[in-house]
Amino acid sequence: MISTKGYAAMNAGEDLVEWTFERRDLGPKDVQFDILFCGVCHSDLHQIRNDWFEGIFPMVPGHEIVGRVAKIGDEVSKFKVGDLVGTGCMVDSCGKCESCHDGEEQYCAEGNIQTYNNVNKYTDGMPTYGGYSKTIVVKEEFVLHVPENLDIAGTAPLLCAGITTYSPLRHWKVGKGSKLAVLGLGGLGHMAVKFGVAFGAEVTVLSTSESKREDAKRLGAHHFVITTNKDEFKAAAKSFDFILDTVSAEHDIASYMSLLKTNGTHICVGVPPKPAQIPPFSLIMSRNSVAGSMIGGIAETQEMLDFCGEHNITSDVEVINMNYIDEAYSRMEKNDVKYRFVIDMTTL
Amino acid sequence: MISTKGYAAMNAGEDLVEWTFERRDLGPKDVQFDILFCGVCHSDLHQIRNDWFEGIFPMVPGHEIVGRVAKIGDEVSKFKVGDLVGTGCMVDSCGKCESCHDGEEQYCAEGNIQTYNNVNKYTDGMPTYGGYSKTIVVKEEFVLHVPENLDIAGTAPLLCAGITTYSPLRHWKVGKGSKLAVLGLGGLGHMAVKFGVAFGAEVTVLSTSESKREDAKRLGAHHFVITTNKDEFKAAAKSFDFILDTVSAEHDIASYMSLLKTNGTHICVGVPPKPAQIPPFSLIMSRNSVAGSMIGGIAETQEMLDFCGEHNITSDVEVINMNYIDEAYSRMEKNDVKYRFVIDMTTL
Repeated sequence: MISTKGYAAMNAGEDLVEWTFERRDLGPKDVQFDILFCGVCHSDLHQIRNDWFEGIFPMVPGHEIVGRVAKIGDEVSKFKVGDLVGTGCMVDSCGKCESCHDGEEQYCAEGNIQTYNNVNKYTDGMPTYGGYSKTIVVKEEFVLHVPENLDIAGTAPLLCAGITTYSPLRHWKVGKGSKLAVLGLGGLGHMAVKFGVAFGAEVTVLSTSESKREDAKRLGAHHFVITTNKDEFKAAAKSFDFILDTVSAEHDIASYMSLLKTNGTHICVGVPPKPAQIPPFSLIMSRNSVAGSMIGGIAETQEMLDFCGEHNITSDVEVINMNYIDEAYSRMEKNDVKYRFVIDMTTL
Repeated sequence: MISTKGYAAMNAGEDLVEWTFERRDLGPKDVQFDILFCGVCHSDLHQIRNDWFEGIFPMVPGHEIVGRVAKIGDEVSKFKVGDLVGTGCMVDSCGKCESCHDGEEQYCAEGNIQTYNNVNKYTDGMPTYGGYSKTIVVKEEFVLHVPENLDIAGTAPLLCAGITTYSPLRHWKVGKGSKLAVLGLGGLGHMAVKFGVAFGAEVTVLSTSESKREDAKRLGAHHFVITTNKDEFKAAAKSFDFILDTVSAEHDIASYMSLLKTNGTHICVGVPPKPAQIPPFSLIMSRNSVAGSMIGGIAETQEMLDFCGEHNITSDVEVINMNYIDEAYSRMEKNDVKYRFVIDMTTL
């Protein structure tokens, strides 16, 4: 076994503390990489707090992981020592179901194996531990090549916030001629704006906060609508083909759907605490859809990283030391971050 | 003005009574046709009762109307006296918006003009009155050719129940290779089964009622699932590409969504009284969508009628006399009809 250290919540809801734990020994198809940076995702906090389901503790969060390959198994062919690599939200899947065959491992019929807070039944049967740590062992198929030409810290959030917004925009073919609204300008939203603009869509940011107006423009958005201003909101009625909804707080999806054109799609990528309330007429009167999307497949994640390398796209990040994490969580809850905290793992 | 008689609710919630009223004089582009049969739709009852919005009274319901042309305006080119024709849920639209240009008048940006319980601002500015009557005047563009080779009574419900199920199946390209579930076997559901089968889909009827099993097979469905049987329900998990949801009563859409495969679509065509409750994970975990669809455009309705003529498809109907309408409403509320009441308008 490989001994390493990380930051863990020893029990649900507790502050993180330094914790020494073991990774499995390198199998023939495994890659071990030393972690340089790990992004901080709101879902880390949700899982530490058991907001969604009963977690596995101690829990080492982190699923936006970038580092350099330290060792490779005998049968590894796609990576060599020293390569800049990354791992996102999942580290394994059944490999046999229709979704896995289609390269959509995130929708694996058996459930994909999450990078942390899960048990990997396909390898050692042990809990998975995430990227708030020094080193990690991952099956080759779930390791991604990270372009060398980008700011490394800024690439970490691509592994979750990036692919979570890239994938639905690709799936629904958002591009030239599309009118896209991005609801919420946070970790996910700011990536959605960058991708939407890069794909050629006409992008509008919908936000409750006037303070985001300048930033929306800086990120490339063509328009900005303050949703709390009734006149601005009304003027935007029936004007979007797509709304990419990145909001995780409770919000009235039906009212935003009034901004969709006929045949429009409201795509949820956030996870609000309560069910959405959708009046039947909101769906029927304009053949609108409400859809959801979860991260992306491995091949698509690689495609996204390559696209980012070619188009010089990274996340806007604030790099922090490992021991700043509790303060970072508290600021994240107040949306006081532009737009993603990334932990410099050399500080652990 | 053209004097005619019909059956009307004089005030909201009242029983229907015979009522003499006037239709507009024939304009150059109008068709007048004498009504042979009119279908009875659940929405007739909803509107009489102001369930959805404040109605216009006296109200003559009926939007599944079939008859023979009695007179045509000077500029009418598509119809001649004696033609078998029909009119469905709408009689006009702005003709200028994107939806109208796209042949989707049902989604007209100005709102289509409903066949009854509406005001036609494009013609005489008077309330519209439906098909529970002897004769009707309709703009040529909103009159459909009805195939002569079918049982005439059975064609009337095609104008609403037919197109309401035909259009979404076409829009979402349901056909060979698709696994389609039809939720609810009533006026809409039985048409959805017939069309789904005719399009080559593998069709499953989902019903709470064991008594529908034989009928589902007779209509051509390949499978039948009693949704109240937990084992049968569980066995159907993640097995459908599409659920066509024809249920207008309150029901738990999220639980049915568990029957969708990855990338599945739950299409609502009924109008339940309360908003659907959709937990975010129901959308996100399998990239599922919840969508809605409303009738169909005029060109598509003609296509549907022609398709029915070619494939010998009609609605299963129980023909009633006009004065049976209150009894018919009461039986319809108990789902005691297979599968559509159609009024023989010669009995008025």
